Amino acid sequence: MDFSLPPEIEALRVQVAQFVRERIIPLEADPANYDEHENIAPAVLARMQQEAKAAGLWAPQIPRELGGMGLSVVGRAALYEEMNASIFGPACFNAAAPDDGNMTVLAKVATPAQKARWLAPIVEGRVRSSFVMTEPHPGGGSDPGMMLTRAERRGSDWVIHGRKWFITGADAAQHFILIARTSDDTRKGLSAFMFDRDQPGWRIVRRIPIMGPEEHGGHCELEFDGLVIPDSERLLEVGDGLKVTQIRLGTARLTHCMRWLGLAKRCLAIALDYVGVRENHGRTLASIDSVQIMLAEVAMQIEIGRLLTMRAAAKLDSGDFARREVSMAKVFVADVLHRAADTGIQLCGGRGYSKDTPLEWIYRYARQARLVDGASEVHKTVLAGALMRERDAFWSWDRR
Amino acid sequence: MDFSLPPEIEALRVQVAQFVRERIIPLEADPANYDEHENIAPAVLARMQQEAKAAGLWAPQIPRELGGMGLSVVGRAALYEEMNASIFGPACFNAAAPDDGNMTVLAKVATPAQKARWLAPIVEGRVRSSFVMTEPHPGGGSDPGMMLTRAERRGSDWVIHGRKWFITGADAAQHFILIARTSDDTRKGLSAFMFDRDQPGWRIVRRIPIMGPEEHGGHCELEFDGLVIPDSERLLEVGDGLKVTQIRLGTARLTHCMRWLGLAKRCLAIALDYVGVRENHGRTLASIDSVQIMLAEVAMQIEIGRLLTMRAAAKLDSGDFARREVSMAKVFVADVLHRAADTGIQLCGGRGYSKDTPLEWIYRYARQARLVDGASEVHKTVLAGALMRERDAFWSWDRR
Amino acid sequence: MDFSLPPEIEALRVQVAQFVRERIIPLEADPANYDEHENIAPAVLARMQQEAKAAGLWAPQIPRELGGMGLSVVGRAALYEEMNASIFGPACFNAAAPDDGNMTVLAKVATPAQKARWLAPIVEGRVRSSFVMTEPHPGGGSDPGMMLTRAERRGSDWVIHGRKWFITGADAAQHFILIARTSDDTRKGLSAFMFDRDQPGWRIVRRIPIMGPEEHGGHCELEFDGLVIPDSERLLEVGDGLKVTQIRLGTARLTHCMRWLGLAKRCLAIALDYVGVRENHGRTLASIDSVQIMLAEVAMQIEIGRLLTMRAAAKLDSGDFARREVSMAKVFVADVLHRAADTGIQLCGGRGYSKDTPLEWIYRYARQARLVDGASEVHKTVLAGALMRERDAFWSWDRR
Amino acid sequence: MDFSLPPEIEALRVQVAQFVRERIIPLEADPANYDEHENIAPAVLARMQQEAKAAGLWAPQIPRELGGMGLSVVGRAALYEEMNASIFGPACFNAAAPDDGNMTVLAKVATPAQKARWLAPIVEGRVRSSFVMTEPHPGGGSDPGMMLTRAERRGSDWVIHGRKWFITGADAAQHFILIARTSDDTRKGLSAFMFDRDQPGWRIVRRIPIMGPEEHGGHCELEFDGLVIPDSERLLEVGDGLKVTQIRLGTARLTHCMRWLGLAKRCLAIALDYVGVRENHGRTLASIDSVQIMLAEVAMQIEIGRLLTMRAAAKLDSGDFARREVSMAKVFVADVLHRAADTGIQLCGGRGYSKDTPLEWIYRYARQARLVDGASEVHKTVLAGALMRERDAFWSWDRR
Repeated sequence: MDFSLPPEIEALRVQVAQFVRERIIPLEADPANYDEHENIAPAVLARMQQEAKAAGLWAPQIPRELGGMGLSVVGRAALYEEMNASIFGPACFNAAAPDDGNMTVLAKVATPAQKARWLAPIVEGRVRSSFVMTEPHPGGGSDPGMMLTRAERRGSDWVIHGRKWFITGADAAQHFILIARTSDDTRKGLSAFMFDRDQPGWRIVRRIPIMGPEEHGGHCELEFDGLVIPDSERLLEVGDGLKVTQIRLGTARLTHCMRWLGLAKRCLAIALDYVGVRENHGRTLASIDSVQIMLAEVAMQIEIGRLLTMRAAAKLDSGDFARREVSMAKVFVADVLHRAADTGIQLCGGRGYSKDTPLEWIYRYARQARLVDGASEVHKTVLAGALMRERDAFWSWDRR
Repeated sequence: MDFSLPPEIEALRVQVAQFVRERIIPLEADPANYDEHENIAPAVLARMQQEAKAAGLWAPQIPRELGGMGLSVVGRAALYEEMNASIFGPACFNAAAPDDGNMTVLAKVATPAQKARWLAPIVEGRVRSSFVMTEPHPGGGSDPGMMLTRAERRGSDWVIHGRKWFITGADAAQHFILIARTSDDTRKGLSAFMFDRDQPGWRIVRRIPIMGPEEHGGHCELEFDGLVIPDSERLLEVGDGLKVTQIRLGTARLTHCMRWLGLAKRCLAIALDYVGVRENHGRTLASIDSVQIMLAEVAMQIEIGRLLTMRAAAKLDSGDFARREVSMAKVFVADVLHRAADTGIQLCGGRGYSKDTPLEWIYRYARQARLVDGASEVHKTVLAGALMRERDAFWSWDRR
Repeated sequence: MDFSLPPEIEALRVQVAQFVRERIIPLEADPANYDEHENIAPAVLARMQQEAKAAGLWAPQIPRELGGMGLSVVGRAALYEEMNASIFGPACFNAAAPDDGNMTVLAKVATPAQKARWLAPIVEGRVRSSFVMTEPHPGGGSDPGMMLTRAERRGSDWVIHGRKWFITGADAAQHFILIARTSDDTRKGLSAFMFDRDQPGWRIVRRIPIMGPEEHGGHCELEFDGLVIPDSERLLEVGDGLKVTQIRLGTARLTHCMRWLGLAKRCLAIALDYVGVRENHGRTLASIDSVQIMLAEVAMQIEIGRLLTMRAAAKLDSGDFARREVSMAKVFVADVLHRAADTGIQLCGGRGYSKDTPLEWIYRYARQARLVDGASEVHKTVLAGALMRERDAFWSWDRR
Repeated sequence: MDFSLPPEIEALRVQVAQFVRERIIPLEADPANYDEHENIAPAVLARMQQEAKAAGLWAPQIPRELGGMGLSVVGRAALYEEMNASIFGPACFNAAAPDDGNMTVLAKVATPAQKARWLAPIVEGRVRSSFVMTEPHPGGGSDPGMMLTRAERRGSDWVIHGRKWFITGADAAQHFILIARTSDDTRKGLSAFMFDRDQPGWRIVRRIPIMGPEEHGGHCELEFDGLVIPDSERLLEVGDGLKVTQIRLGTARLTHCMRWLGLAKRCLAIALDYVGVRENHGRTLASIDSVQIMLAEVAMQIEIGRLLTMRAAAKLDSGDFARREVSMAKVFVADVLHRAADTGIQLCGGRGYSKDTPLEWIYRYARQARLVDGASEVHKTVLAGALMRERDAFWSWDRR
């Protein structure tokens, strides 16, 4: 058993941590560096991306031959956590959602031609991308079996009609991966396609206003009214839509955890700074034992979250789908993120509730954590199902 | 023992509930009715205020002779809860913070001349007001003993220097009540004054950006650099600043609870609407027993919050300060509000996280509930102090 | 609205509190006063019962004409809470379960002859009683529709066969009320009967060993193998078994709450005594703010529990079944009792875990609170069902 | 990074699991196998110990040359968890507290002569032992600085006077390790000694009755009134008492976690068995999604507890004191144990509350987990202190 990072990962981690602390976090202080959605301004981003590339810290999740760092999932986890010490971090390293998930799936299953056309520009940081799947009621929300958007075959093309929503990053994306229904088969009814922003036959109905900070390109509602996609831009086989989704989700769920841990740690760092200096009735907040208990509980939660994330990462690296481990990490770290932001705000008082620190940004962002990629309640019922099925294994204590 | 509302209050309650449901809530659906801070637009507000006045539902907390409904605190609690079923409600009935607290304190302690000058226009709805007390670190936050803003006597005037922040509504207020230091006496070192927005010698440094919805006039940082206030605009005696604050806070803390209950109930209503129709894997969310448990818990919390609020209201009506009862209500209902909004969002999923319902507005607003007017942790330590002092009373079971 | 006790109830409450504090609690200190199940010794009990009768504090729940105090449910709630400050209290006042529930139902629905035969001796304190309903798997546990014990008619008699368990007090009872199946009708399939311990045809298989303190007569498993009951000892009509159960449960569930509040308050009193004197690293536990927060939270929970209990009591007094109010009280106070005992133990450390105080007795006893008379989860789903059905009432804010 | 057990440990783990399942757990069903304190009967224990020895599964924590298995802390953790699937497990393998802690410390610091005299018989299973430290108020409870029991030097002997309590296993022990005050020096004021049950000058005042199951020898109160101990039976140097304590506690705290995980897993196994067959209103409990959520949460907690325990074990194996890691594991697993037992009882209903399963035994035992070897609140404040001191390390994300 070995709970420490491999030395080469540790060295990269330290390098990223220093980069974020010295080059990125200072940017947060000047409103000129971000837009009204609190996204880093394009010019600043471009500069930071150049620096990150120059430092060899670019696209950790992408194979070296495609332009990335070629790291294992464990390595990715270590670096993503550091990158997310700043809310601007992920974009600077080309490690932001949804691009990183899209790149991962394309790197895994696209044909060479598809990779050249759709993947390479994302890896290079020239375009951004979006994954188009979720539908509004009564379509496919958390239950893809209810998906209503259809791709009808017409010769060597597919014609798309339907409606999607909460499509992250759509308003800033050039490249899209779309999941649509190609038959009514229960298991093989969905297929995956790529399309370009400039193609006709679809539109962004609105950028859905949300509580949370809107990431690049927001969360959009999309309407498809005859978009034509050549069959050559189909990903995998007809009927493999769910498979594409699962390949993407496998690590995507865990990358959330990696990011959330970084944000949670930032919250705790802000709180530690504040309670060390803020006095109340003649003593610093840090000297009050109920404050200490709050801090210790958050610190424990963060370490537990990291253990769960790393365990799942190591299992993914071993070739396993690690569904159970990923679910556990996702459910737990979602709560950690909220708890860390909430505690930070409570300890910083009015300052914590203001935009003078990133705490409120993280607090709003955290609220989606229990919802995205499967509500926590759903993950738990799935975990319980596995537990019931594998009772003998359970009884034998052998959970590996 | 009687846990039911007096019939005349009940009749008013029903009237307000109907007004809110039929006249105010429909306004929420059209973005034209509110500004970028999600405050009701001035013209719409003016129209609604006219309607409310015409219906005899105006300023429930203000004595009849000053133009209000002259209700008891219990009556106010019943009506405020109804009014807050809409986020636009309180302003329409001239029952919004911080005006209602300012009106209450002025109605109680101002001289007739001061009432005519400062109170009447607020009651009539012609101007809004603000209460200027909290200071940034190292000044007086939750500990007024640390207050640094000074009022220096100069002849028959007072000259003010200092800095304040998180001053609710300042950017929209015409009339201000200011708490400043007039001596270093521990108990009688603070005094209260009124001033008008148009007086020179002070400025709004910034509207502090916050997570929460910014109410009319925001939460501002103020700088005083020689504001001159005639001694005639002093409230009560020199050294009575803390007393003014306490008179204001006595019921102001409880009015938060009244409002929060209304908002919490709205959250639950939205959730009930959604789970009754939204299906997942072939069954409505409402039919899932873990969903039922979530709903029941919120409903219970709301009823408990109302019991605590009404108990404190009844005790305030009896002439008691009801500190313990108000603290308990404040601590508990602050949690109820968060829980209700959080549950609403979790059950409504992406829709709950979007701005398509007021859930996200309420969720952000709820985050300040555990902080304003005393952090929950502070209230609890004060409650424990009372418990230790009054152990004999406690042991006797007699908590009245 | 009036949250205070009527003066005559308050006077009785003070009298009971004094009696318990001065006469009963001191008995707890001497092991000679109780048996190995920590039940008060018969001779001591007899003496205390005489004193209680002499003081006019006997069977608060029973009509005066039958020998009790004839109190309302509100009055009963006030007194029961005081009586339960000692774990020996209820028996001394003939207010212990299951006798009090059995007396209540017999006083309500028995014929005059049945009252003379079965009720009078219980009221006088000469015999104890038991209510025989719950069955082991696969019989009727929380779902009476699964009941398997049958009463077969034979001439003017009924013959009973079947198995019951967790029958509280059976091993010390002389009079039994039995619920058995008389037909397969879904709603009218059960009937109620009385039988005497000395009748043949049944036996106590075992006293089920449990975690909790075993009350008088334990929790027994019973086997019926031909017990003959004359039809004259049938309670209400054939098919009214469920009705008898519901009449009994209506207030019985709430009497649990009344008792639990008394026990919870005792826990807090013990904790307050201890933290005031116990020092750690030079300061009393009472001066540590996280300890204060723990104490304040328990105190709040107790007051909330009392509000919920009194609200339900007042509604029962008004003639309503108050199902929703009773459920809420039961669910909430069950948690309060655990929380109070748990906090008491945590603050008292090793002493709290020992039998040197009643904390550990109460802690074990508390564990059944979330199970008896409907698991908390079941109550919540029932509450949610009511909430869904009465949404319009809910929306109108009118919860009475 | 490697989260899997070394193969040789895994093989032993499987062997122990099988032994416990096949040989020990069946013993729980027959009351003839245990005494009134639910401790395994001496004859049965002797038989099982023989079997365990014969299987090579004896004293995992003790070096091979002293007769044990010589396992690392990681190995010990894996085996202890399995052994504790039965409440009789630890004693059968000579891995029960307090013997295992006493053996560990003696194996580490005793002289060869002391090892032969005091350690060997414990390792062989011929005698049991006890560690005598905690004192009643106003002596040294959680704060050893308050210790009052004194060892006064008289020639080559030490004479002991004082009072101790909660001395685990004292009533069944032959060999005792005693901590007493030898000077008033703040850091070097305590020393450690060995004495034998048969020596005069001390007595067991009482076996303190406790809620929890009384382990072999109970938790006793001891009085020392002139016990004479030769200086040759002093452990380490005069003034090293605190050091001895810390050496013992280092791994002893973590062995609690190992045991608690085994018990928690047993609780979950019992619950899984029950919910799979118990029906309510026509469906098994296992099919209810709120039940699934409860099960999944416990399963997650157990896996997290194991990760924390194994991480601390691995760090101890590396030679580090691992204080932070041990504290986190102890605080967390204490909660896991309660949660698992509580959930088991709630799901099994009356059966869970009875002694028909070990759930109630575990529930009572679990209550001491948040108290022994440092209350959870104390561990958290200590953790927070470390967090404040190491903020730079924290900020750098580097928590190793």
